[in-house]
Amino acid sequence: MKFGINLFPTTGPAEKSAARHFEESLRLVELAEELGFHHVKTVEHYFTPYGGYSPDPVVFLAAAAARTSRIRLVTGAVIPAFTHPVQLAGRLAMLDNISRGRLSVGFGRGFLPDEFAAFQVPMDESRDRFTEGVEACRRLWSEEDVVWEGRFHRFGPVTLLPRPFQRPHPPILVATALSPESCEAAGAAGHGLMMVPSINRTEQVRAMLARYRAAWDDAGHDPGDRDVHLSYNCYLAEDGDVALERGRVYSEHTNRALAAAVEPWTRTRSDAYRGYERVVERVRGSDFGKQVRDGKALVGTPHEVLDRVHAIRGWFGDVTISLQVISGNMPFEESQRSMRLFAEHVLPAFDQESAAVTAG
Amino acid sequence: MKFGINLFPTTGPAEKSAARHFEESLRLVELAEELGFHHVKTVEHYFTPYGGYSPDPVVFLAAAAARTSRIRLVTGAVIPAFTHPVQLAGRLAMLDNISRGRLSVGFGRGFLPDEFAAFQVPMDESRDRFTEGVEACRRLWSEEDVVWEGRFHRFGPVTLLPRPFQRPHPPILVATALSPESCEAAGAAGHGLMMVPSINRTEQVRAMLARYRAAWDDAGHDPGDRDVHLSYNCYLAEDGDVALERGRVYSEHTNRALAAAVEPWTRTRSDAYRGYERVVERVRGSDFGKQVRDGKALVGTPHEVLDRVHAIRGWFGDVTISLQVISGNMPFEESQRSMRLFAEHVLPAFDQESAAVTAG
Repeated sequence: MKFGINLFPTTGPAEKSAARHFEESLRLVELAEELGFHHVKTVEHYFTPYGGYSPDPVVFLAAAAARTSRIRLVTGAVIPAFTHPVQLAGRLAMLDNISRGRLSVGFGRGFLPDEFAAFQVPMDESRDRFTEGVEACRRLWSEEDVVWEGRFHRFGPVTLLPRPFQRPHPPILVATALSPESCEAAGAAGHGLMMVPSINRTEQVRAMLARYRAAWDDAGHDPGDRDVHLSYNCYLAEDGDVALERGRVYSEHTNRALAAAVEPWTRTRSDAYRGYERVVERVRGSDFGKQVRDGKALVGTPHEVLDRVHAIRGWFGDVTISLQVISGNMPFEESQRSMRLFAEHVLPAFDQESAAVTAG
Repeated sequence: MKFGINLFPTTGPAEKSAARHFEESLRLVELAEELGFHHVKTVEHYFTPYGGYSPDPVVFLAAAAARTSRIRLVTGAVIPAFTHPVQLAGRLAMLDNISRGRLSVGFGRGFLPDEFAAFQVPMDESRDRFTEGVEACRRLWSEEDVVWEGRFHRFGPVTLLPRPFQRPHPPILVATALSPESCEAAGAAGHGLMMVPSINRTEQVRAMLARYRAAWDDAGHDPGDRDVHLSYNCYLAEDGDVALERGRVYSEHTNRALAAAVEPWTRTRSDAYRGYERVVERVRGSDFGKQVRDGKALVGTPHEVLDRVHAIRGWFGDVTISLQVISGNMPFEESQRSMRLFAEHVLPAFDQESAAVTAG
């Protein structure tokens, strides 16, 4: 088990200035490294309080890299449909070098209609653009004199500069929401997987992970390199009632931001996004208490959260967990407290277990 | 007079690893802030040792911002022809916030055929794409609910996040090579100007600056806000012969990198780039000794360089000078030494003069 923090901003100018958001977030990155967390992650979104403070995760992660020396840096995720692969691969290679090999690159398809509209990219093309973009980045990182003759881009022969620090390239993770086929493809390709378990039933996630792991093993990849990232809303307090009450406030705040961002789905249809027309009502109908009880949000006392993490490990095996510690425009001091409580009470249990397993 | 450093990389994997380049460059940024320099600047280029280690200046400048608190950060330049304005404006706004308002944005048209080919952008469109990109960024920064109906991009209404720290937007600088019309347009628009005086005759530069300043004043902008950035190769040593000998080595190294990058101009023609077909022979025919004598390279003893800077001020008035302190794959220790000598012997003269002028 590995544990990091996900600095997914769900705030906007009416609530918190961007300068303050970045200043606090950089302090949380320094704290995360100090406390022994494994990674920091952030997202690519535009225009709305649902992630819009982070149109380019590489910019923030470069600042984070300059303030730290050990913690890993993860894009969660960048969206190749919106960016030329030469630019995307190039700036990620810069970050990989600035951080001396601490980068893992999560790629996502994107799912917000207003973003695709702004970039004049048809949503129906999103899967093909995603696939082409990931593969083009992989080749630009790992090969020289690359000639690319794709559906959306044609270039070469070119040799990307800078060459990535990690060879042949930084670890690649693929974000997926609901698609077992994507999980299988990621496993076959030797990519990591990035999921948000709160939007699926636990049994569905288990089934998707089983297909991912089977495809990974069938392809002959080293089982030790498999990497599954799961993000969870997170709020810890010594008093369980306080945790539930505050956790609910921030969860509902995040859901309002998400509901506003997905609202265009009420008038959007795409064969490439079946079922998304119901996403608004699903977000609005989200039941915080049930999420906590079902182990889909890490909210409670340190002891309760430790139990939940044990349950998650039981369901999904050894995974990498990203704690959403600023969701819902949570005040900085509460983010710090959650992280400190998690580091004090949860991290040691799993560090010791890993050590024991290794020693055994 | 203001003085900063230009970290324009002219090296590649065969000479210096990218990790080492970035590590040394970040140390030079810290040194520049410590020594009282005004800004750090870097470039956008791709694929070759002529700037190719910096496909996205914003990534490096974000790391630089995280290591500093006073020095200004300047893109020199970003190329809007290659990047969607929502992404360009967005990541620059992130940097403006991360640095708490220390960003100035230089925009350039680009001039390397292989870059335009990789992005499948016709060079003949470069001026229109530049103009549209700069104006779209300006509006995204300064207005909400922006509707953009351009020749190359259509989007909106959208409100960019994050909002920039500096209002209405970070200072804008326009890079220009040879075009008096561009200088006039920049002055009329209230933008700063970014030039490389070494590629023009001094009288040409004077004429262009006169048109820029006249257009600025005619438009009623505050004369105190005018900003002209000039970049110079720089090498200082206590021993003048050593300075000339080492300066020549690095200048010739840079010229070889430039000559290789512009080599495609031998088989490229564009009405938007008249005369560029002769750029290769001009670079190859460059005469280092004459450059130094003509005050187009700041190479020599501290006293000689001080005299040159006085001459530059006499020719061009108060300008912002960017010292190219890593050009030609110069060893880190020599970059440090040049900067220290400049800070010790040249900076104080102009700081005192500025103070005297203000006091008088």
